[in-house]
Amino acid sequence: MTVSFGARLERVFASTGRLCVGIDPHAYLLGEWGLGDTAEGLREFGLRVVEAAHDRVGIVKPQVAFFERHGAAGYAALEDVLASARAAGLVVIADVKRGDVGSSVTAYGEAWLTPGGPLEADAMTISAFQGVGSIRAPHDLALSAGKGLFVLAATSNPEAAAIQAARIDNGLSVARSIVDDVQSWNEQEHSSGGEGSGSRPNGLGSTGVVIGATIDMAGYGIDAGSLRSTPILAPGFGHQGAHVRDAAELFGAASAGLIVSASRSILAAGRDGVAPAIDAQVRELTEVFS
Amino acid sequence: MTVSFGARLERVFASTGRLCVGIDPHAYLLGEWGLGDTAEGLREFGLRVVEAAHDRVGIVKPQVAFFERHGAAGYAALEDVLASARAAGLVVIADVKRGDVGSSVTAYGEAWLTPGGPLEADAMTISAFQGVGSIRAPHDLALSAGKGLFVLAATSNPEAAAIQAARIDNGLSVARSIVDDVQSWNEQEHSSGGEGSGSRPNGLGSTGVVIGATIDMAGYGIDAGSLRSTPILAPGFGHQGAHVRDAAELFGAASAGLIVSASRSILAAGRDGVAPAIDAQVRELTEVFS
Repeated sequence: MTVSFGARLERVFASTGRLCVGIDPHAYLLGEWGLGDTAEGLREFGLRVVEAAHDRVGIVKPQVAFFERHGAAGYAALEDVLASARAAGLVVIADVKRGDVGSSVTAYGEAWLTPGGPLEADAMTISAFQGVGSIRAPHDLALSAGKGLFVLAATSNPEAAAIQAARIDNGLSVARSIVDDVQSWNEQEHSSGGEGSGSRPNGLGSTGVVIGATIDMAGYGIDAGSLRSTPILAPGFGHQGAHVRDAAELFGAASAGLIVSASRSILAAGRDGVAPAIDAQVRELTEVFS
Repeated sequence: MTVSFGARLERVFASTGRLCVGIDPHAYLLGEWGLGDTAEGLREFGLRVVEAAHDRVGIVKPQVAFFERHGAAGYAALEDVLASARAAGLVVIADVKRGDVGSSVTAYGEAWLTPGGPLEADAMTISAFQGVGSIRAPHDLALSAGKGLFVLAATSNPEAAAIQAARIDNGLSVARSIVDDVQSWNEQEHSSGGEGSGSRPNGLGSTGVVIGATIDMAGYGIDAGSLRSTPILAPGFGHQGAHVRDAAELFGAASAGLIVSASRSILAAGRDGVAPAIDAQVRELTEVFS
C-alpha cells in the first residue's frame, strides 16, 4: 500500500528533523559559487546542494522559476537535480506555485506528482486563487500516489496581505478559508483510511499550507490549534527576518507539522560553506524542538 | 524605439481581429488528432495549430501545463511551437499563470518575456495572489521589452468566486482591486510616454486582465467603463458556455481591449477541421465587432 505523504513527513521529522533546504540558483549565487548562469551551472549548483543536504536534512525545495528561466535546457538540469535528490532519499517539494482549472491544473498535478514522470517530486506548492475547488484534481492525484500539496495561504511578503486578508462571504479571511478547507481535506483523508491515515487519526495529512514565518496568523484569523493535522511550509526564516529559534513559539500548536524552510541563509555560505551552514541550522532547530 | 504591447494589440485588432486560438494539447485531443501523448505529439499538434492560425488570426495562446506535463522534452517542443508562432507574426500569449515574489517572480518574467530567450512569448498570464505589488518586477520588465502581462482577475470557473469576490479593506472585491491596479498601471504607462503610450492617451496599455466571459462583472463591482485602456483576455467562449455573438454586449465599454479566447471549440474540429473552425469563428466575431 502507498505510504501517505503525511506519514512520510512524520518519519522525516523524527529521523532528520524539520529543516528544508532551498535549491534557489539565483544568477548572483551562481556567480558567487563560481558557476555560469547556464543550464550547466544550474545542474552543478543543484547537485552540490543535494550532496550537502543528504544525510543532514530530510527535505529540499527547488525553486523552479530559476530553472524555467533557462527553458528546456534548464528543465533538463532540473530533472537531474530532482532525480538525484529523490535517489538520495530526500523528500522533494517542487516550489512551482502552479494554479489553473480543469484539465490544465490536472496536467500540472501530473507534471510534478506522477510516479516515474520526468519531473517527479514528492510534493508541489500550488495556488488556489481560482478557488480551493479548482485544485481538487491534483489533490486527488496526490493522495492516490502518496504525494503532497502545499497550498499558498498566508505568504511572507508584505504586499500579499490585502488579498490574503480579504473577507469572504462568511466573514473569514481568504487565508483562513484556505487553511480551513485544507484541514478539512486532511480530516477526510484520515477518516477514509489507508496507511498513515485512518490508523493515525492525529497524524499529519498530505495537504499542507504555505504560511510565512514573518506573518501574524491571528491577524488572518488563523487559529494555530486548528492546524494539528496540516503540514505547514514556512518560508521567511533567515534572510526575510524570522529567527529559527522562535519557530516553535511563532507556530504554537501548529508546530507539529512545521517545515522550516531556509534558502539564502544557507546558500549564501558558498559552495564549500553549504554543509556547515546546514549543520548549524540543524543544531539550532534541534535545540528548539527537543 | 520598442513598440508597446498595447500598441501591437491595437494593430492586430485592426488587421486580423480579436480571436485568440488556444494551443491546448490535451491528451484526449492528441488522440483524436492521431498523435501520440508524447513530446513529439505536442510539437506536431502545436505546429499544426500555428499553421492554421497563420493569416487567419493574430493571436495564439499555448496552455503551458500540457507541455510541462512532458518535462524538459515537452518544453523543447514548446520552444519550437513558440518560435514558429512568433516567426509567423502571431502575438503569443503564454498561458502560464505563474506567480511568486522577489527574485522568483522576476525569474518567471525573464523566462517568458526576455527577447531572444528560449521560451520568449509576447505576453504571459500571471497570478497576483501574493499581491499586485508582487508582480511589479515582471511588469517593469514587460514594459521595457515591449511585452505584456495578463493578470488573473475574475476567472471563468465557478469555484473561483469565493476568493475573487472577497472584500479587501476598502470594501472592494479582490477582482475589482486587481482591475483597478492594472488600469492605473496602464494610465501610468501612457503618461510616461513612449511609442504607443504617451502619444495615444486613449490607447491600450500593455498590462491586461483575465476576466471570464461567463462571469457577471457587475457582481464583482467591476465597471466596464473603467477598463478602456486595459486589454482583457476572456476565456469562457464556446465549450464553457459564453457565445461569441454576445461578446460585445457582455463586455460593453470594455470591449475596446477584448481578446476572445477559444480553444476546445476550435481544436475539437480535428487536424483538418481547425482552419475552417477558425474561419467560422472569425466570421462570427467580425459581424459582432463590425
